[in-house]
Amino acid sequence: MTVEFICVGTEILMGNIVNTNAAFMAERCAGLGLDCFYQTVVGDNVERLKETAEASLRRSDVVIFSGGLGPTEDDLTKETVCKLMGKKLTEDEKAWKHIKKFFEKRGLELTDNNRKQALVPEGGIVLYNKNGTAPGIIIEGENAKAILLPGPPGELIPMWNEYVEEYLRKLNPAVLVSEMVKICGAGESKVETVLKDLIDTQTNPTIATYAKIGEVDVRVTAKGEDEKECRKLLKPVVKEIKKRFGARIFTTDENVSLEMAVMQILNENKMTVTTAESITGGMVASRLINVPGASDIIKLGLVTYSNKAKRKYLGVKRSTLDKYGAVSEQCAKEMAKGGISAAKSDVCVAITGIAGPSGDGSTDRIGLTYIAVNVMGKVKVKEYHFDGNRAKIRESASTAALTLLRHCLLENLTEKTFSTG
Amino acid sequence: MTVEFICVGTEILMGNIVNTNAAFMAERCAGLGLDCFYQTVVGDNVERLKETAEASLRRSDVVIFSGGLGPTEDDLTKETVCKLMGKKLTEDEKAWKHIKKFFEKRGLELTDNNRKQALVPEGGIVLYNKNGTAPGIIIEGENAKAILLPGPPGELIPMWNEYVEEYLRKLNPAVLVSEMVKICGAGESKVETVLKDLIDTQTNPTIATYAKIGEVDVRVTAKGEDEKECRKLLKPVVKEIKKRFGARIFTTDENVSLEMAVMQILNENKMTVTTAESITGGMVASRLINVPGASDIIKLGLVTYSNKAKRKYLGVKRSTLDKYGAVSEQCAKEMAKGGISAAKSDVCVAITGIAGPSGDGSTDRIGLTYIAVNVMGKVKVKEYHFDGNRAKIRESASTAALTLLRHCLLENLTEKTFSTG
Repeated sequence: MTVEFICVGTEILMGNIVNTNAAFMAERCAGLGLDCFYQTVVGDNVERLKETAEASLRRSDVVIFSGGLGPTEDDLTKETVCKLMGKKLTEDEKAWKHIKKFFEKRGLELTDNNRKQALVPEGGIVLYNKNGTAPGIIIEGENAKAILLPGPPGELIPMWNEYVEEYLRKLNPAVLVSEMVKICGAGESKVETVLKDLIDTQTNPTIATYAKIGEVDVRVTAKGEDEKECRKLLKPVVKEIKKRFGARIFTTDENVSLEMAVMQILNENKMTVTTAESITGGMVASRLINVPGASDIIKLGLVTYSNKAKRKYLGVKRSTLDKYGAVSEQCAKEMAKGGISAAKSDVCVAITGIAGPSGDGSTDRIGLTYIAVNVMGKVKVKEYHFDGNRAKIRESASTAALTLLRHCLLENLTEKTFSTG
Repeated sequence: MTVEFICVGTEILMGNIVNTNAAFMAERCAGLGLDCFYQTVVGDNVERLKETAEASLRRSDVVIFSGGLGPTEDDLTKETVCKLMGKKLTEDEKAWKHIKKFFEKRGLELTDNNRKQALVPEGGIVLYNKNGTAPGIIIEGENAKAILLPGPPGELIPMWNEYVEEYLRKLNPAVLVSEMVKICGAGESKVETVLKDLIDTQTNPTIATYAKIGEVDVRVTAKGEDEKECRKLLKPVVKEIKKRFGARIFTTDENVSLEMAVMQILNENKMTVTTAESITGGMVASRLINVPGASDIIKLGLVTYSNKAKRKYLGVKRSTLDKYGAVSEQCAKEMAKGGISAAKSDVCVAITGIAGPSGDGSTDRIGLTYIAVNVMGKVKVKEYHFDGNRAKIRESASTAALTLLRHCLLENLTEKTFSTG
């Protein structure tokens, strides 16, 4: 079965935003074993959208549209596709109720053009939007099916997970089961080198690597008669990958994030944690708190960006700052000790680093970061050199902090070692 | 003049990589005042590549290809496009010398198929590649021009800067200048309604709105002979938008974020800030710290997620928590007061809310958030109702906190009011 994407939006054509929706949908479709031969981006223009949609609906079984479902004048995707597929638009009561509630909740005033978002094609499947106003729509034409999704990733991704994934799976007869082996603390080229022989000889299951910041996900996908057969095909391959990366693998569950894996260890061991952040300025605490049930585990998050705050709230010695500077192994160590003293927690992770040019404008140390983890008095410090812009360096540092925190917890709580990489 | 992009690569179709080349080229072309109506991604397949290239060369003046210039069997872009445009391939001596040198330098061994990278079309303009082996090529056909560029951004971007930008500028004398009017605290449809008359009658400058979480950006773009003329065209339109949204506009500079605008106000007034975060768990501090030079302004960031932490570090009264709960106007107020007492800062922003199901599993209050801003003892509290998943609610809350912080600062420091919206 072939599927293709049409992403609608002038902001993509103007380069205002990167088309991450296409990458997300492409990865998911690959995981479902669907053949995707084209991605197209077109602006909010009836003629060009019509021409593009026509060609796509002719050559593919399923065409997935993203964007252009908004309330404004230039949002035309729904109107154009429905006209093309000969479907009349009628108001969906539930969708309209939902939109009204959405606005009331925010104390925002409804405008007439919001009402057009509640219009859906006759016979279409409505995908209600929990994260925005525009509902998604599935239109089943004679030759091809069209799936219309809202443009904002915060709306598209949950809608995909709730409706689209399942709908596509049902359409595709072949059963595909995949496991996502998530590896922290190893770069993509490293992972590819270690898996090269497996990747080169892959047929079924297939192996694909996806590089994230500070994390590499390896998707192993098996095609078979039923789930049982797929699992059987997956088992030896996943086992082999586990053998090669050991404890650096933090999950094989697509839905488990690094922060979830860390919180699980803390939770299972009834341990509390404190964060002491400088360069990451709260990103590590924020990521941990995004995991439900964090309040029993996270005793305190301290953001101590200035030297003064490091001294006052974490008890970092003035002499340490004078002698070694705030971005040093010594400072990180004292921060990690001070965090536990301040909050009486079992564990503390401390991060200090340089995200941009320093006061004197020197750029040579940008990216230098020290992360210290204190597990019940046992402190481990590691030096890192990250690259990229300010935001990327900070993102890398927060992922590295979670990675080191996890490793230290496992090393202290189990006999796991991290020989690989 | 119209230009479009064809990005060639199975790794994009599989979602292994995000198509950042398209975003880069799109932004550059927009800056040159070129009309870009399509972006297409197609795999390394002769038939589909030929079909796509044919359509693009028919409808656009310039078609820019990226990827598929490598040495391997499945790199077919050059061969396919040249055949389509009726150009013979001959070896370019300089390109071949360059490739040989590139390999010698790295002690790599040349393979026969590297030689195919030195083949260029007769009469084509060769763009020598300083960062890789594949040269770029410009083919000037009768109807359209084709520009072939290597896929790796590390090769494409420098080649663009060295050759392509200048080549395109010569083709198109018109210049495009745009200003980004960024508005906080108003929804997209609200902004659309207020600007409807301007948008409906837009020709030059054009007006486009981009919805972000808790923020709407309005891009006003003028086309003219030179920058001076464009600025002149922009001025009255931007002035009119400013008139309609008043102080809700936090910048007209594309590169200024909401957090930067807030930090600027604090900096100009030599004020220090403390963050007291529960639901956002450090996101607000993190966003402020992403602005360079934050260390003089941010005294302390406190992440107090549990009730115990709210009492211990912010002095929230137990009776307040018992009587009103942690997610209440009263608690937010006490947090905002406690933050200033704890850090002796001039300003404190406090955020408390419900991002997910509570202990008893009840979901009815999810999204309810109270944000309090304390400016030198003067406290303002506001109630919000956000929805979406856990991450989206927290993101909305952090943007709302920065928005309220900015408004309170302006209201206390100037006579600005926020009648609009």
